[in-house]
Amino acid sequence: MAVVGGGVIGLSIAWRAAQTGWQVTLFDPAPGSGASSVAGGMLAPLSEGWPGEEATLELGAASLARWPEFADRIAAVTGRSVFTAKGSLSVAIDAADAADLHTVAEWVGAQGYHLEVLSRAQVREAEPSLSRSVRLGLSAPSELAVDNRALLDAVRSAAVDAGVEIVERAVADLDELVADQIVLAAGDRTATLWPGLPVRAVKGEILRLRSRPGTEPPPSRVVRARVHGRPVYLVPRGDGIVVGATQYESGRDTQVTVAGVRDLLADAQTLLPSIGEYELAECGAGLRPMSPDNLPLIGRLSERVVVASGHGRNGILLVPITVDAILALLDGTTLVEVKCADPERFNHDAGAKQ
Amino acid sequence: MAVVGGGVIGLSIAWRAAQTGWQVTLFDPAPGSGASSVAGGMLAPLSEGWPGEEATLELGAASLARWPEFADRIAAVTGRSVFTAKGSLSVAIDAADAADLHTVAEWVGAQGYHLEVLSRAQVREAEPSLSRSVRLGLSAPSELAVDNRALLDAVRSAAVDAGVEIVERAVADLDELVADQIVLAAGDRTATLWPGLPVRAVKGEILRLRSRPGTEPPPSRVVRARVHGRPVYLVPRGDGIVVGATQYESGRDTQVTVAGVRDLLADAQTLLPSIGEYELAECGAGLRPMSPDNLPLIGRLSERVVVASGHGRNGILLVPITVDAILALLDGTTLVEVKCADPERFNHDAGAKQ
Repeated sequence: MAVVGGGVIGLSIAWRAAQTGWQVTLFDPAPGSGASSVAGGMLAPLSEGWPGEEATLELGAASLARWPEFADRIAAVTGRSVFTAKGSLSVAIDAADAADLHTVAEWVGAQGYHLEVLSRAQVREAEPSLSRSVRLGLSAPSELAVDNRALLDAVRSAAVDAGVEIVERAVADLDELVADQIVLAAGDRTATLWPGLPVRAVKGEILRLRSRPGTEPPPSRVVRARVHGRPVYLVPRGDGIVVGATQYESGRDTQVTVAGVRDLLADAQTLLPSIGEYELAECGAGLRPMSPDNLPLIGRLSERVVVASGHGRNGILLVPITVDAILALLDGTTLVEVKCADPERFNHDAGAKQ
Repeated sequence: MAVVGGGVIGLSIAWRAAQTGWQVTLFDPAPGSGASSVAGGMLAPLSEGWPGEEATLELGAASLARWPEFADRIAAVTGRSVFTAKGSLSVAIDAADAADLHTVAEWVGAQGYHLEVLSRAQVREAEPSLSRSVRLGLSAPSELAVDNRALLDAVRSAAVDAGVEIVERAVADLDELVADQIVLAAGDRTATLWPGLPVRAVKGEILRLRSRPGTEPPPSRVVRARVHGRPVYLVPRGDGIVVGATQYESGRDTQVTVAGVRDLLADAQTLLPSIGEYELAECGAGLRPMSPDNLPLIGRLSERVVVASGHGRNGILLVPITVDAILALLDGTTLVEVKCADPERFNHDAGAKQ
């Protein structure tokens, strides 16, 4: 079989498919250099819950539940953990934010999951480096974060060890591939290989900050908030913090803009006042592969092609369930949890006409 | 002869010395990677004039006067110009700034040089992209700017063409060199090679912005101002703008800090509101070799060693006069304009005791 795309999704599928006996060739002009390489790596389906987005919550929670086993598989190969945070903490700066956090907590609770509301004092005790302007928190201890680059390195070397052949070239047309089965996991380039698939690129920028001698240690949890209406998150890493993320609908470039960096720095400082002393080690941009309903496209496109794309902001979170779903498809079965991600859902009109 | 240090000063001296018949070997572990590589490249001795700093003004103006001939020499080798701006414009945001600009104009005028005061409307006409909050300007048409990296590339290749041997290793002790004459041009490392020389490292950060499709063109002049008490300058380049510069007395690292980038972006935007759309192509830091009186150290230290260091913020400006002064010293003569830079001035106490 062939896998087109060498991000975390493609590499993970290639690895696990090879482990189950497939002969796998993976194609990517620059494996590991796309959106996966600039991801924050938050696993936060509960904290990102919102009334009306039941399918997104269920899919995310199902994948989060599979992460410990997936991480164990990785650790069995590499000997190290890819987790980097001890939970997730959404915080409110103003009264409107606080009301939103209560809305999330109640709605997520009604769906059968639990988020803990923390008072101002409890937030301070949990993360003393955060600004005093934080007035409320929402804690999700199960929502860890993943070091995206450690993950990329791990699944790439695991794939190679399992016998995957990585071919560093672009695929212009699926017809040029001779494999009997093809997994299309080409991120923002997916629609160029399967015209009509509704996957568009949404540019995002992130910053990587590194601790310096004398800097306050990073928070121990992922910290998320909305500042001036813009979502910002701080994701701890072994050596610092990833700050994300901007979002632009226009442009397919990966240039980092002055305005993006300016806003991320300002918003991060609103949460973590001591951030000025950190090293600004990297500014990066990536292209998220987004679908119209923010759910991914995981399913069969033809007898020969399955798709695993359109993961948007949640590519790292959705790795385990995507891998399991694609392995099931290749095996002739389906995984019920990913029914909401069936690409057929966008063919409703076309189907009605036939 | 040996030149220790491969910044613009060392490379330029090596080149010109080789042209005049010297056999030159230049030592630097990473030529062109130090302070020269992150310089703004402003040639602005008049705009930076200030009552009481007569020697700095005279030395800078003398070197500025030599720049056209020096640039012609470079163009004769490389076929291209290293100049990037059509003059310098200092601007005032508030009443205190405006008073300072009048002070500079009057004092520089009294020293025999000319700076032109521009009204709000004249500034707007000259540089329409600047903020409407600019209330006054000070124009210096003779103060061009130099593309520091084009200059580095040019003098390095010119040096090699002229027969200079570049040895990419660090010199730990001048005694290890066999040359009969040694030029010490080691920037912030100067004092480690000649203990007692009062050259300290002053860290500075700069940003390199690149134009993107649709961005407003860069100003045609160097634009300088003080924002919230911090000096900021915008230096046009062929493909964008260099924004500088922070200044830190502590630390010998070249890590770029969050606070430094944050302040530079904010201050640049105060001058040029449309800057947000530019690409933030690079954040860099360098170590300026500073002397106690902000004048360089150019002179003979011993029968075998001459020094050309301590140029602080003005390394690019002072290249031509430093080269001429060192060539004169090697030739057994002196250049009267650099008398103020004689390193002996710091031996006053020691001399009095003898």
